[in-house]
Amino acid sequence: MYNKGSHILSTFKVHQTELLQDHLLFKSLIDKLILDNELENVGETYHSFTGAGFTAYVCLTESHLSIHTWPEYGLATFDVFLSNFKHNNSNKVKNIFESVKLFFDAEIESYHLIER
Amino acid sequence: MYNKGSHILSTFKVHQTELLQDHLLFKSLIDKLILDNELENVGETYHSFTGAGFTAYVCLTESHLSIHTWPEYGLATFDVFLSNFKHNNSNKVKNIFESVKLFFDAEIESYHLIER
Repeated sequence: MYNKGSHILSTFKVHQTELLQDHLLFKSLIDKLILDNELENVGETYHSFTGAGFTAYVCLTESHLSIHTWPEYGLATFDVFLSNFKHNNSNKVKNIFESVKLFFDAEIESYHLIER
Repeated sequence: MYNKGSHILSTFKVHQTELLQDHLLFKSLIDKLILDNELENVGETYHSFTGAGFTAYVCLTESHLSIHTWPEYGLATFDVFLSNFKHNNSNKVKNIFESVKLFFDAEIESYHLIER
């Protein structure tokens, strides 16, 4: 029996727009969250656009994390999706979402939680 | 003014489960779709699980594509998300979704279209 995983899709409004241009600082956060939540990174990309935002993902054995930032609009679209194959990871999805929201000191522009 | 992009999240029911184990065949499809739709790949991961499915991610300047397959359940979760920053890509999102559905000859187990 397949156990659905939780996928949060969010758009953040971010006032500290310099955070939306610093993919290395964001990567430090994500690396720590992966370690703390005992997830397994199997591949990642962090790509910065010159004078603009960045786009990044981490492919996990448990599914994925992704972000696309728009400093010119003070926005970021962030996703966290973890399967529940070996463990119930639903709380980890919520914890990671809250940690990223806190990191950006973000207001929520849009939020969807999909069980899939 | 930020133009929202279209994000389709789907779960496919797939009867030809060998397709859910062959990440190279899927990669051929995705490479062709990226070329045909004039998208730009800035990083990708294709990771196969021994004797099981695969997990894959393509990071695009326009956002991302992702898939996680479960041959043991005949399921795959597939996402396509393209921003509308430079062009309106909403039709490309739908076309890519339809091409991947056709490739797997899939039934739709779940489907969400989110503008974000």
